[in-house]
Amino acid sequence: MSPRRPVLAGALLVGQSGGPTAVINSSLAGVLYEAARQPAVRAVYGLRHGIRGLLAEDWQSLDGRDPRLIAGLRATPSAALGSARHRLDNTEIAQALAVLRRHDVRFLLLIGGNDSADTAARLAEAALLAGYPLQAVAVPKTIDNDLPATDHCPGYGSIARYVAVATAEAVLDTAAMRQTDPVKLIEVMGRYAGWVAAAATLAPLPAGLPPPLVYVPERPVAAEQVLADVEAAYRADNQVVVVLSENQTEPSPQGPRVLGADGEPEWVDAFGHPYYPSPAAYLCRRIRAELGLRARYDKPGTLQRTARALVSRVDEREAFAVGRAAVRAAVRGQGGHMVTLVRRGDVPYRVATGLAPLAAVANQHRLLPAEFIGPDARAATTLAFEAYLRPLLGGPLPEFRALR
Amino acid sequence: MSPRRPVLAGALLVGQSGGPTAVINSSLAGVLYEAARQPAVRAVYGLRHGIRGLLAEDWQSLDGRDPRLIAGLRATPSAALGSARHRLDNTEIAQALAVLRRHDVRFLLLIGGNDSADTAARLAEAALLAGYPLQAVAVPKTIDNDLPATDHCPGYGSIARYVAVATAEAVLDTAAMRQTDPVKLIEVMGRYAGWVAAAATLAPLPAGLPPPLVYVPERPVAAEQVLADVEAAYRADNQVVVVLSENQTEPSPQGPRVLGADGEPEWVDAFGHPYYPSPAAYLCRRIRAELGLRARYDKPGTLQRTARALVSRVDEREAFAVGRAAVRAAVRGQGGHMVTLVRRGDVPYRVATGLAPLAAVANQHRLLPAEFIGPDARAATTLAFEAYLRPLLGGPLPEFRALR
Repeated sequence: MSPRRPVLAGALLVGQSGGPTAVINSSLAGVLYEAARQPAVRAVYGLRHGIRGLLAEDWQSLDGRDPRLIAGLRATPSAALGSARHRLDNTEIAQALAVLRRHDVRFLLLIGGNDSADTAARLAEAALLAGYPLQAVAVPKTIDNDLPATDHCPGYGSIARYVAVATAEAVLDTAAMRQTDPVKLIEVMGRYAGWVAAAATLAPLPAGLPPPLVYVPERPVAAEQVLADVEAAYRADNQVVVVLSENQTEPSPQGPRVLGADGEPEWVDAFGHPYYPSPAAYLCRRIRAELGLRARYDKPGTLQRTARALVSRVDEREAFAVGRAAVRAAVRGQGGHMVTLVRRGDVPYRVATGLAPLAAVANQHRLLPAEFIGPDARAATTLAFEAYLRPLLGGPLPEFRALR
Repeated sequence: MSPRRPVLAGALLVGQSGGPTAVINSSLAGVLYEAARQPAVRAVYGLRHGIRGLLAEDWQSLDGRDPRLIAGLRATPSAALGSARHRLDNTEIAQALAVLRRHDVRFLLLIGGNDSADTAARLAEAALLAGYPLQAVAVPKTIDNDLPATDHCPGYGSIARYVAVATAEAVLDTAAMRQTDPVKLIEVMGRYAGWVAAAATLAPLPAGLPPPLVYVPERPVAAEQVLADVEAAYRADNQVVVVLSENQTEPSPQGPRVLGADGEPEWVDAFGHPYYPSPAAYLCRRIRAELGLRARYDKPGTLQRTARALVSRVDEREAFAVGRAAVRAAVRGQGGHMVTLVRRGDVPYRVATGLAPLAAVANQHRLLPAEFIGPDARAATTLAFEAYLRPLLGGPLPEFRALR
């Protein structure tokens, strides 16, 4: 009698895609850890630079039974396999499928955002049409927190913690230096959505220090309004910290566009995502010229998404958990899905993993809902938003002390 | 019999000055803690916004016997009393002296950099001429690490830890994204000196990842040379991280000037320190245009000097210790000095406090010495620099994992 053989069995390929995060390697670790425990998974390979590594057959064997590998990945930000921003064309889809067949790959796990979900969906569909039993599962990852169907995205809790703490530190710094540098702008990431900027409203400020002005792209704002807000805040408090998204919008007759840009992006990537000049630099110039106030801006750039010292422990654990859940889904034959996080409660915070069809995820963007957006820049988010975000920050924020 | 009365007794004023750091409040805590234990100190007041608070008689009573106050300050970055950049003119010196006399202030402690030492020296001299027994002591503080007479400055170890870790994280991020964003520049602080940028050479990189190119203002470099370095590094590794000072210099017929500036500062502060446009932005534009490589830059700005999550524990302890030592010096009648840190050994690291005459400190800048500067941007510092800096980082840096 031969041992009972699982219906589905073969090699597993895993890749990382899109912008790195502080915890995307924890999802990779979760995939490797679980894959090593599933008899259906005959071999595990990591794609170098995501889908490009698939086309180029550039991958490496990875052993999830090695505890040092798992622990090392869980402590390392960025994407250890290398990432990619590449949209497969139809020829490449066929090529990719041929590669998968040739190596008997039955499980394909892509850790990424909207674009990865799209790639996974297209490969799954092509496999189905070709009669090739491929289980393609997407593992959610994005600091932008803009994937639909999941309560939140691994990566977001950590950048939210970074932004909340950095904003408090900027308010403390500005309080000390307000006689020479009263206005500070911080330009944060977040693509089309204001999730990242909104985290600044949870900055752990000591009593007596003024909250930041926070702008989110969901609410277009004219530069003139920002200047009026800054002037009013300066009159009230002698100091102003502004937090805004790198893609903060302004109204225009043609609809919202990036604030301070004349409509022309500096650069457009392979997925058609435009990159604009800095709204913070633009506002800084106008604040100096029109309000006569010294204004400086900080642009933490990619440092904010890889800052390991401010990782949310909740985010890290969840990133690991979604990686494991994706492998379990794949070996159960539940390809064509993205793993989701399903919130069961805020206090105490409880969460489970779930699955959503890739078609419901690919190329969709979840913006801040209206009930999370407050009335103005001084009260930019609501209590509902705070209840949503607080548990994701992974424990208490630092407590700072003010002298008054 | 009345109890023996100390020769020197009276009120103590303490102020903070110059740019904030992650640990300047630890020095304030050290002053308060020690002052509460010295019978000669009859009362303790904190100046709001440094020397401006002295002129305006704007101060608050502070009690160093309150353990929550001490612990809170030691956990809070920036300058809790408020800082200032103000140079006293001769009229103000006389005014300040009158205020000190009126309130029977016998101990004046200024926590700051070169400019505070200058202010303390001028007040001490004026008091001596006026026959008023004032003990003015400077407490060293600067992320720039450019004070003479001390082995290093409180504040430096923490920003050095920040820069080393952030550089490693930027190299990891660039490794993941090198197919779309192969070149990253990080512009750090440091004024005239390269101490802060040099810390990038201790970035905790996993084996197999290329070290950053690091430039220091002590070694002027033409933009063309930077472009050639970036191109060579890109050819070798397919990715490049550049770390440079906000005041990186280039040679010019009139002598070194800020790279990419045409000689005109954007702004000059009250001490005559010039502020220039960003060398990183300038180099980014030229790298894109002349090398055809996508280049982005991060400017962590004031976030790098207040990042509490990356405080060096050694730095924090030393900041507290120099505050205590300053009070002891003041009550012993050793005014006219700045507290220094004297290194007694590298392995194991041992340090003591000492004193240097204010005249030897005020308005002097200690640049990176020649024996700390390596041959080129790829090897920007020496083993002697590493031996100097390593103990100041306050314990092991994070260990990151690479997959190769």
